[in-house]
Amino acid sequence: MNYRFADRMRKTPRSFIRETLKVTEHPDIISFAGGLPNPSVFPVQELAKTAEEVIREDGPAALQYATTEGFLPLRNWIAERYAHRYGISVTPDEILITHGSQQCLDLIGKIFIDKGTHIGIERPGYLGAIQAFSLYEPAFVPISLEMDGPALDDLQNFLQIKNCGFFYGVPNSQNPSGITWSDEKRRAVADSLHDNKGIFIEDDAYGEIRFRGDIPRPVKTMVPDQVVMNGSFSKIITPGMRMGWICAPKPIMDQLVTAKQGTDLHSSILAQRIIYRYLSEYPIDAYIKRISDTYKCQCDSMVRSIQEHFPESVSYTIPEGGMFLWVTLPENISSMEVFARALKEKVAVLPGIPFYTDGGGFNTLRLNFTNSSHEKIEDGIIRLSRVLNRLLEKSER
Amino acid sequence: MNYRFADRMRKTPRSFIRETLKVTEHPDIISFAGGLPNPSVFPVQELAKTAEEVIREDGPAALQYATTEGFLPLRNWIAERYAHRYGISVTPDEILITHGSQQCLDLIGKIFIDKGTHIGIERPGYLGAIQAFSLYEPAFVPISLEMDGPALDDLQNFLQIKNCGFFYGVPNSQNPSGITWSDEKRRAVADSLHDNKGIFIEDDAYGEIRFRGDIPRPVKTMVPDQVVMNGSFSKIITPGMRMGWICAPKPIMDQLVTAKQGTDLHSSILAQRIIYRYLSEYPIDAYIKRISDTYKCQCDSMVRSIQEHFPESVSYTIPEGGMFLWVTLPENISSMEVFARALKEKVAVLPGIPFYTDGGGFNTLRLNFTNSSHEKIEDGIIRLSRVLNRLLEKSER
Repeated sequence: MNYRFADRMRKTPRSFIRETLKVTEHPDIISFAGGLPNPSVFPVQELAKTAEEVIREDGPAALQYATTEGFLPLRNWIAERYAHRYGISVTPDEILITHGSQQCLDLIGKIFIDKGTHIGIERPGYLGAIQAFSLYEPAFVPISLEMDGPALDDLQNFLQIKNCGFFYGVPNSQNPSGITWSDEKRRAVADSLHDNKGIFIEDDAYGEIRFRGDIPRPVKTMVPDQVVMNGSFSKIITPGMRMGWICAPKPIMDQLVTAKQGTDLHSSILAQRIIYRYLSEYPIDAYIKRISDTYKCQCDSMVRSIQEHFPESVSYTIPEGGMFLWVTLPENISSMEVFARALKEKVAVLPGIPFYTDGGGFNTLRLNFTNSSHEKIEDGIIRLSRVLNRLLEKSER
Repeated sequence: MNYRFADRMRKTPRSFIRETLKVTEHPDIISFAGGLPNPSVFPVQELAKTAEEVIREDGPAALQYATTEGFLPLRNWIAERYAHRYGISVTPDEILITHGSQQCLDLIGKIFIDKGTHIGIERPGYLGAIQAFSLYEPAFVPISLEMDGPALDDLQNFLQIKNCGFFYGVPNSQNPSGITWSDEKRRAVADSLHDNKGIFIEDDAYGEIRFRGDIPRPVKTMVPDQVVMNGSFSKIITPGMRMGWICAPKPIMDQLVTAKQGTDLHSSILAQRIIYRYLSEYPIDAYIKRISDTYKCQCDSMVRSIQEHFPESVSYTIPEGGMFLWVTLPENISSMEVFARALKEKVAVLPGIPFYTDGGGFNTLRLNFTNSSHEKIEDGIIRLSRVLNRLLEKSER
C-alpha cells in the first residue's frame, strides 16, 4: 500500500531529541541530553495514598466522563495561585485543564494558526512548541533571544507583519537557554504588544522552579487581554499524569474549549482530582522549595565544574531556575561533532540545532543538570572538557 | 481586543449535545439524551486498590515522563486481546495508547486531512468524529447507513473521488444508530476498499459491549493494510481516565507517533499502569459480561416499553450492543419539536440533526438506555409516547 498523508506531516520535524535520546539511554552514559525532572524528589507515598482515597471516596465521580473545562476546585486553586504568586487576577472561567503543557501548545496552534500564519518564536526556541505548531503549518519568524529577553527590533518587525498570529516565548528559565527575561524587557515587550495589538503566548512551565532572584512579573499582568498563559504540574508535582493548564481571556477560552472537546473531550478527571487533593492535603510550597533547592545544588555543581574545566573561549548561561543551561562554543566548533565525540567518552549532550527554526545554532549545546548526581555532573563536565579542548586545539592548528 | 482565529474554528460545530445536555441536567428530568456508561458497574474498590499499589510499587516509573507509543505491557495486552477475540494478528509496534478514543480521531485527522480532503462518514455518523475531523477542514461525504451497514453505491462513489482521504465508520453498535453491520456488508466493504485502495477507520469503541448475536468479524481482518482500528477502555473499564488506543499498519503508525508527540508527548503513564495492573489482576471477561448483562436488561426494558407505547408509525432499531437506539419519526414530525415538548414533560431526548453532515435527520432521535433505571425507562418512554401521540394527532388534522 502507498499511503497518502496530509501536507503538514512533511513539515513536522521528526524529533531529533527523540532519536538522540535513544543512543544516550545506556546506563554507562552520563546524560545531560534529556530533560527529565529528578525522580528522587517525587512524592511517591503521598500520591499513592491520595490516589487510593480519591477513588474510594469520590467513587464514580472520579471515573466518569467529566466537563471539558476541567475540575472546578482545581481551576479555582490555579486562579488563587496566580493571584497570590503573580498578582494576576483571573476567574476559573479563564482556565482550562489540559493533558500537560504540550497540549496547551497543540490547542493554541489549532485555534490560531492557518497554513502560512506568521508565528514569532524565540531564537533559540522551545522544541516542543516548534513541533506542536509545525503541525498547523505556520511560517516561523525567529526573534533573537538576548541575555535579558527577546530582541525588541525583531519583535517590533514581527508584530507589523500583516498575517501575524502570535509571539510565543518562555520568559522564566527558558528551555533550552536557561535565560530569564529582565523586568525591563517584559515591560518593553508588553508595550510593543499593546501598540501593535499583538498576542503573546507566555509559557510558564518553569516559573515555580526558581532558585535565584525575585519572582519576575509576568507579561500577563501588564496586557492581560493580549496574553495566553500556559502552566504545568509536571515540574512541581510529577509529569507522568500529563496535567497542565491554559489561562486565556474568555473569547479565546471559548475557542480553546471547542478545540479541546474535539481533541480528547476532557482531561483525565481522576488525575485532576488526585492533584487537587494532593494540593489540598500537603504543603506544596515546602515541596516546591525542596525541588528548587535540589536543582539549585545540581545547577551550582555544573556551573562550578564548567568554570573550573571548560576552555575560556566557551560561554554559558547561569540559570535562575528551571532545568537547563546553554553553552555557546567558538563559532568554528560544531556541536554535532562535540556530540559524537562526547558520546565516545560516554557523556551525552544535546546539540542546539533543533531549537532553531531558521537553521543556525551550529555551535550551541543544551545541558540538563537535574538528572545526574553531583559526582556524575563533575565527571561528565570533565570528560566534556577533554573533548572541547581537543577540538579547539585541532581547530587552532 | 479583536481576536483573529484560524479558519477551522468557524467550521467546527459548537457541540449541540453539550448545549442540549446543559438543559437536561436537572435531577427531575429523565434523560435519554446523554451518553454515559452506567456508573453502578464501575469497579471502584478494585481501581482504588490498584492505583495505590501501582504508585507505591512502581514508584517514579509510574510518575515520570514516558514513551510516546505507550506502556509496552498494555500494548501487548491489546495485541493479545485482538488475536483472541477477533483473530487479528498485530504486533505491539502497531498499537499507540491515546487519551481516549476521541484522541484517536484527532490524530487521524491530523495525519490524513488537508483542507478540502474528502472524508467518507456514515449518515448518520458519530458526532465526536464529525467534531474532531472538522478541525482539519475536510469535505464530508455522507455514506447512507442502511440497517445492515453502509450503502455500497455511496461507498463506491466516494472511493472514486480523486482527493479521497478515508472512510470512517463504527461497524459495531454504532453511535448514534445502534446498528451493527452484517458480515456480508463487511465483506463487501472490504472488497470495495481493496479494489479502490481505500483507507478505512474502523472505530470499535463498543465492540466489547455486545449482548446479542455472534462476535462480528472486523473489516481489519479482511484488508489489514488498509484499516486503522480505534479502541477504548471507556466502555469496558471507566471513561474518566481517558484511555484508548489506535491500531494501524506501521507506516501509518510512524506518522501517528510523530503527531502524538507534538500533541501531548504521551498518554498518562499512571493511567496506563493502573489499567494494565487492573487487567492483570481481575477477571476482565467476567466484568465485561456484567456490564453487557446490565445494558441488555436496560435495552430490553426500553425496547419493550417502546413496543407497548409508541405510535405504530414510529420505527426504531433493536441494538445488539452498545448504549443507544435510534428512533425514526414520520417524515413530517420535527425531532426538535419533540425535544422541546418532551422537556416540558421532564424527559430529555437527543434530536438526530447533529449526526448529519449534510443537513437531514430532521425526524430522528437518539435514545440512550444505559443511564436510567428500569422504572425511569418505562416512565420516560410513556411520557415520550404522549408527546408523540399528540404531535401525530396534530399533524393528521
